[in-house]
Amino acid sequence: MQLLPKYNNLEFFNLIESQLLEVHDYIDAQLNSLYEPVNQLLEHVNTRSGKMLRPGLVLLSGLCCGEILPVHITVAAITEMVHEATLLHDDVIDEGDIRRGDVTVNRLFGNETAILAGDLLLSRASVICSSLDTDTSKIIAYATSQVCEGELAQLLQRDNFQLTEQEYIKIISQKTAALFSGCCKLGAVCSHAQQSQVEALNIFGENIGIAFQITDDLLDITGNENQTGKTIGRDVDKNKLTLSLIHRLSSAGDKERVTLIEKIENSRHDQKVLVDILSNNGSLEYAAMRAEQFVDLAIDSLADISDSPAREALLSIAKFVTNRVA
Amino acid sequence: MQLLPKYNNLEFFNLIESQLLEVHDYIDAQLNSLYEPVNQLLEHVNTRSGKMLRPGLVLLSGLCCGEILPVHITVAAITEMVHEATLLHDDVIDEGDIRRGDVTVNRLFGNETAILAGDLLLSRASVICSSLDTDTSKIIAYATSQVCEGELAQLLQRDNFQLTEQEYIKIISQKTAALFSGCCKLGAVCSHAQQSQVEALNIFGENIGIAFQITDDLLDITGNENQTGKTIGRDVDKNKLTLSLIHRLSSAGDKERVTLIEKIENSRHDQKVLVDILSNNGSLEYAAMRAEQFVDLAIDSLADISDSPAREALLSIAKFVTNRVA
Repeated sequence: MQLLPKYNNLEFFNLIESQLLEVHDYIDAQLNSLYEPVNQLLEHVNTRSGKMLRPGLVLLSGLCCGEILPVHITVAAITEMVHEATLLHDDVIDEGDIRRGDVTVNRLFGNETAILAGDLLLSRASVICSSLDTDTSKIIAYATSQVCEGELAQLLQRDNFQLTEQEYIKIISQKTAALFSGCCKLGAVCSHAQQSQVEALNIFGENIGIAFQITDDLLDITGNENQTGKTIGRDVDKNKLTLSLIHRLSSAGDKERVTLIEKIENSRHDQKVLVDILSNNGSLEYAAMRAEQFVDLAIDSLADISDSPAREALLSIAKFVTNRVA
Repeated sequence: MQLLPKYNNLEFFNLIESQLLEVHDYIDAQLNSLYEPVNQLLEHVNTRSGKMLRPGLVLLSGLCCGEILPVHITVAAITEMVHEATLLHDDVIDEGDIRRGDVTVNRLFGNETAILAGDLLLSRASVICSSLDTDTSKIIAYATSQVCEGELAQLLQRDNFQLTEQEYIKIISQKTAALFSGCCKLGAVCSHAQQSQVEALNIFGENIGIAFQITDDLLDITGNENQTGKTIGRDVDKNKLTLSLIHRLSSAGDKERVTLIEKIENSRHDQKVLVDILSNNGSLEYAAMRAEQFVDLAIDSLADISDSPAREALLSIAKFVTNRVA
């Protein structure tokens, strides 16, 4: 077995390194086809695996409440397959060229292939789900449906320069945090945890998910493509309002808003201009501060979970989601 | 309750008309969202419902083996949602402008919206699946995964002018027939049918599915947009080989093939030229004849199913799939 390049230096995963490899191998075994060209494509998809944050959350949440069972590996694999499917479609929608430091499937094989590869991953995930017990498969299906609804809501809110912070948080709660909280809940449920533990981990996941997405959206503005490993500037390019922009616009008077929107639209291919606009009145700092508040809520939610190396690792993840460059 | 425009004149559905309306209403109730723009979109998707062939197969297969139970309505709705999701993505991939006599979602709301609306439908279908028993949800998940694999395989075979009839049949077995056979099997399983009945209906669905797709591919060449209600000529436009073309090319010598491929590619926007090329040596007739052979196999497979109005309706569907203009 070989260490995967992307997550082997995330210290909080040391505890579950061998299980993460099992997850990776499990996914590999699921991604097969009768057709050689399909196999080649699926191999490409699984080779460029990312941080494996979602499987990591399943495993560590499970470990917080008991031991890691075979079902944790299965469930962790499903969450990563669902995530990967949404990334494939996201990159088509955002016209992303780079993901995980590599050329995206849409750029390499075309949009059509990326759409259908995403569908195949989603449907294979459902095949595995159908062999799980109802409680488990319900959590997965519900989280996936939330992600899809959030993605669609966000798309339909493009060009809406009136979007409020509350609406933004609601959208990212579905689009991103629903899968994070689903992962934590799944880990606990599969370890037959008490209801209070399940609930605590669910809230933990929800809050780090929101913090993660606020940070992701900040990185899309301030990040460096070599570090993030993905195309940046996509949100402004697609008129997708994120927290720092919402903050900047909300603090402007009616007249200034018009000029500001024009400036933002013109900053599309000039990262420095956009960063300047959002630095002036502390909008970038505001978004970063809000992300930290969600991290604090996440940490608080684990107060009643017994101390253990797995709990420590979860706390490290909470701190990591806002302190990352990729 | 109001009769739906598209399937109210399909006589074989008279027997299950009220249940098909229940299916339609069930889907309607599933397609809701927290977001008003998402609701509007979902309403648009479900208003333009099609022939409801797949739900019809679930219900009639169920009725062949027993009575229609509430689970049949649920399962029938899921199959239509899965089908609708694949149509949404198909139209993006094939750049279709017209579907079911109406402007496609991709053309009306953009490719991005059509992709995410398809994802939402698929994931909502999974949510409903997760409350069904394992036997049922396995059939649905497996059929959906087959459809996605077949679609991807077909896409990756574009521009392959060497595609054989056998490879074509294998692809359409997955892409189309898997859901037809899944529907028939589901109907039987939900009526607690004997294994032999389940198997017979499964084979019935498989064969009418293949016949249906061969006919669909023929209609893409010979059809009339006003009658089919969808954009035609997409296959040749996308270098997608279908049965009549495979037959025509396979009956040509090496030298003629080169000229022929050129002629076919040049016939993209001239239906008459393409029809002439494929009429010369009976390639259109060959494909139609092969479709009829699969219909005959479907009819044979019902030999041991007791005679009933539901069985008669299934036999009418078998004859309908090759004798339709839409």
